[in-house]
Amino acid sequence: MNVLVIGATGGVGKHLLPLLADQHQVVAMARSDAQLAAFEAKGVDAVAASLEQPVSQLAAAMAGMDAVVFSAGSGGATGSDKTLLIDLDGAVKAMEAAKASGATRFLMVSAIQAHHRPNWNESLLPYYAAKHYADRELMASGLAYTIVRPALLKDEPGTGLITAAKDITSGGAIARQDVARVLAACLDTPHTQGQAFDLISGETPIPQALAAL
Amino acid sequence: MNVLVIGATGGVGKHLLPLLADQHQVVAMARSDAQLAAFEAKGVDAVAASLEQPVSQLAAAMAGMDAVVFSAGSGGATGSDKTLLIDLDGAVKAMEAAKASGATRFLMVSAIQAHHRPNWNESLLPYYAAKHYADRELMASGLAYTIVRPALLKDEPGTGLITAAKDITSGGAIARQDVARVLAACLDTPHTQGQAFDLISGETPIPQALAAL
Repeated sequence: MNVLVIGATGGVGKHLLPLLADQHQVVAMARSDAQLAAFEAKGVDAVAASLEQPVSQLAAAMAGMDAVVFSAGSGGATGSDKTLLIDLDGAVKAMEAAKASGATRFLMVSAIQAHHRPNWNESLLPYYAAKHYADRELMASGLAYTIVRPALLKDEPGTGLITAAKDITSGGAIARQDVARVLAACLDTPHTQGQAFDLISGETPIPQALAAL
Repeated sequence: MNVLVIGATGGVGKHLLPLLADQHQVVAMARSDAQLAAFEAKGVDAVAASLEQPVSQLAAAMAGMDAVVFSAGSGGATGSDKTLLIDLDGAVKAMEAAKASGATRFLMVSAIQAHHRPNWNESLLPYYAAKHYADRELMASGLAYTIVRPALLKDEPGTGLITAAKDITSGGAIARQDVARVLAACLDTPHTQGQAFDLISGETPIPQALAAL
């Protein structure tokens, strides 16, 4: 598959690029000339586009893609204005662009329990609201979606062992490397299409955990 | 009808209460004890609830209501965090509460061209994004909705003459008093159910303008 990664410089995205490159043609979306040059210097195919651009420009960047992975986030350094415009509206623009360009598969990195308002992280309510509505839009989009809702993200190396389920309310955490492994596995697992699940570090190898969803 | 007004202290809401009181049983939602006392001092029925409370508490406040008018807004004095939590998530919680409590009619005060991203007001993008997704949620909610999308709001007295249409791209403005008159007329005009329209000051009396939608 031709796969566009949005958020390729992020904590999950940087693990995802080499994982996907084994099986797919991967293109990183770069939102600046400096990012574009940095990808090219590493031998990573990249295309210039920004989630703050119109859908038509995002769609042009997606030309020829089969799948889109959305692992972008406005991050904690910017305000809730960017949360609304990147994490929610930027995500929905990416969905609209995918449909306009013919990409049919869409993987979303969300946040644990984003689907269940009473369990939103109290200190991150605006972020959770943005992710919640982006996920709802994706489920209604007609795209072949998978929504991965990881718990607290850690930078430590992954274990390849996870727990994945529709609802995990026990708390938990997961390595960004393992989130990337799950995303890569989802792309190769049609059974995950139309599914949304919480994700924490656990005891089950990723392929078996996804097959059991 | 029993009608709950959310945003009853706002610029549109304060015009709306007396207009509705002629034809309906009106209850104002008050988010503080001081607001509650102020309504009661004016002889306005009021119920204490906040859009930042859980849906269950909003639903309790809506017990016995037939219709909900959402004219609340976080306003320019707060940040985009409140835009996300009030204008978007608060609105959707009100929709969920309406459904849970048996209120079937829902009127939303939106913003001109909120449905068409390329025409969002550049200086109010986060607000427009919040209104856009709240409106989309309402259209998918199953409630008997009317979405009124007024242009720039003015405090001057209204004329009772409007232009209402699916798409008004000419710009324009409208008095808050006329927005309130349109909302009151929509409640009494079943033809407006399932409709969303832009609204500016114009040349057509409100009943005829709504009948022509």
